[in-house]
Amino acid sequence: MSFDRIDETRLRSGSGVKWGSLAQGTIGAWVADMDFGLPPAVKARLWQEVEREDFGYPHWPAGDPVVTAFEQRMHTRFGWTPTSGHTRVFSDLIQVLQVVVEHTTAPGDGVALHVPTYPPFLASILRAGRRVVPIPMEHTADGWRFDAEVVRDQGCELLVLVNPQNPTGRVFTRTELTGLAELAEELDLVVLSDEIHADLTYPGHRHVPFASLSQETARRTVTATSATKAFNIAALRCAVAHIGVPALRKALDAAPLDYFGQPNTLGRAATVAAWQDGDSWLTELLLTLRRNRDAVTRWIGPGRSYHAPEATYLAWFEGAAGAGVKLSEGWEFSAGTDVDTSAFVRVNFATSPDTLAEVLRRLETP
Amino acid sequence: MSFDRIDETRLRSGSGVKWGSLAQGTIGAWVADMDFGLPPAVKARLWQEVEREDFGYPHWPAGDPVVTAFEQRMHTRFGWTPTSGHTRVFSDLIQVLQVVVEHTTAPGDGVALHVPTYPPFLASILRAGRRVVPIPMEHTADGWRFDAEVVRDQGCELLVLVNPQNPTGRVFTRTELTGLAELAEELDLVVLSDEIHADLTYPGHRHVPFASLSQETARRTVTATSATKAFNIAALRCAVAHIGVPALRKALDAAPLDYFGQPNTLGRAATVAAWQDGDSWLTELLLTLRRNRDAVTRWIGPGRSYHAPEATYLAWFEGAAGAGVKLSEGWEFSAGTDVDTSAFVRVNFATSPDTLAEVLRRLETP
Repeated sequence: MSFDRIDETRLRSGSGVKWGSLAQGTIGAWVADMDFGLPPAVKARLWQEVEREDFGYPHWPAGDPVVTAFEQRMHTRFGWTPTSGHTRVFSDLIQVLQVVVEHTTAPGDGVALHVPTYPPFLASILRAGRRVVPIPMEHTADGWRFDAEVVRDQGCELLVLVNPQNPTGRVFTRTELTGLAELAEELDLVVLSDEIHADLTYPGHRHVPFASLSQETARRTVTATSATKAFNIAALRCAVAHIGVPALRKALDAAPLDYFGQPNTLGRAATVAAWQDGDSWLTELLLTLRRNRDAVTRWIGPGRSYHAPEATYLAWFEGAAGAGVKLSEGWEFSAGTDVDTSAFVRVNFATSPDTLAEVLRRLETP
Repeated sequence: MSFDRIDETRLRSGSGVKWGSLAQGTIGAWVADMDFGLPPAVKARLWQEVEREDFGYPHWPAGDPVVTAFEQRMHTRFGWTPTSGHTRVFSDLIQVLQVVVEHTTAPGDGVALHVPTYPPFLASILRAGRRVVPIPMEHTADGWRFDAEVVRDQGCELLVLVNPQNPTGRVFTRTELTGLAELAEELDLVVLSDEIHADLTYPGHRHVPFASLSQETARRTVTATSATKAFNIAALRCAVAHIGVPALRKALDAAPLDYFGQPNTLGRAATVAAWQDGDSWLTELLLTLRRNRDAVTRWIGPGRSYHAPEATYLAWFEGAAGAGVKLSEGWEFSAGTDVDTSAFVRVNFATSPDTLAEVLRRLETP
């Protein structure tokens, strides 16, 4: 298996703007997904499902296989045992965010969130008429740090925790998470913990599921994740939410039948294959990503507003611009808040070493 | 291509209870999907998509291909031109029903619906706290007929029209539809027109899209359909709703981003392939289904509460029971209403001639 290629066919695909290639002008290092193919285990499972030609109404008398695979993976990989019966399957993380926002907050309520953050989260919260209460990520000599005390007296009902964090790549420590859990307890916040990048945690850091901190924390936490990020299958649409909050479980169980739709069987099959059989690919992926991350770190050099990400394939740093490379612009990651991140950019480094070298060459020296 | 097979692998599939086979005891003629494989065009498109390995975040700068394929198909096959910008993509028809019920009615409101009907529709409406106001399908010498005047003064806000009708297989005539449209106008009803069986209309009958009747009718109609029924891809989950009702379009456009989820790219690709390239398969399918339908009609003989379906692969008739065949029981199709259909059964005849012969052999003479 090799990650050292750009698939030219993607440039002509119906999915539109993609990474691009060296030969075709601008390189799209702003995209959200990786410039790699599929894990072989996922591809094999999809082929098998297509070959079987059984796309009638699905029925799982022994339980949803996605839920089973999720529960097993959390246990074996992160040492957390999800509670049986608490997991629901959704289309994607943005949908989970919206469902949680709609059911646990009212218009005008505050939603605490580390900023900078993934722009669609800001857009979703603002569009729902809720207020983003930013917890600024502050650049310090020791890395990106934050002070969650700023959310006091801000009328917050919900904390949206993105861990590992996007775009800084922080993997919050148990100490940081425990502090957040205590604050959530004190302020009686529901916590939506988006852990979609957990599988992309680099050596030296350890992902701690927020709901694993304590029983009390679990009861106020919705843990959302998906195989789509680490296994490069965003378009296959399948996410899970482990809903520790009793009132939210009750509300969702009372919702109209099928109101939130359902991922299809191929999205489910790919998810199960990724979680159960994708780890050899993931191991190699992480080696590739780590080499790329270290190349970015060397290129940036010391003394800049940058810390090497502890997880994710995203680098967040100050002061770059270039010709022939499209980057994610920093202002988007704090839009609608009073945090100013306009001097930053986010670069996706999940591409071949050659393409990454070309991206860095095209950027002006920061 | 042959429909004359039972795929034994399905019996061992994760999708659970299926048709079964002659060798394995009970035949599951109660299931909702067909005992056939995939249209070759759909299979080829799925293989192509898997082979391309491009499952990053999808993006359609030129518009959603599912919407384009839907608009083209309605025009070429049914002579109806959907209004540009009115179509939304959903997961499945039950979801569309729920979304329409939630947004156009209030708890306690009446929802008019021909009965017998697809049991999940009854369950969904009742679970939402709305009242089913049945329009009974009456057996007459001329076929299944109804008198929609019964919905007057019943507090109805919505008419759920299933056309072609499930389970009677009626293809409502332009005259019948015009009568319903006039009543809807008079009573100011929103109409959800479920036309998912339209592609399975037999020669001698013609499917008329309800929204095609007039501009006035279009403005109170939500037309819902999907390729999943006629092309045997229920598990791939992709449906469309053409929303003629301005207030509903506005409400959906104001809904939280991604609140209702999204079908994945494989469900979309299969849908587009089915609608654009699946018609040779569909033509052969209809020949097979018609032969089967006629075999059922001959077996039932004259003088029974039965009329050969004008569309669908479903036969609805009185007084059958058998050993070694699981049928859909009639009471489910009127549950929660004062219509009594307990003497009826629904038989799915979308299987091989051999299996159908065995089904009929196992049923007692009606």
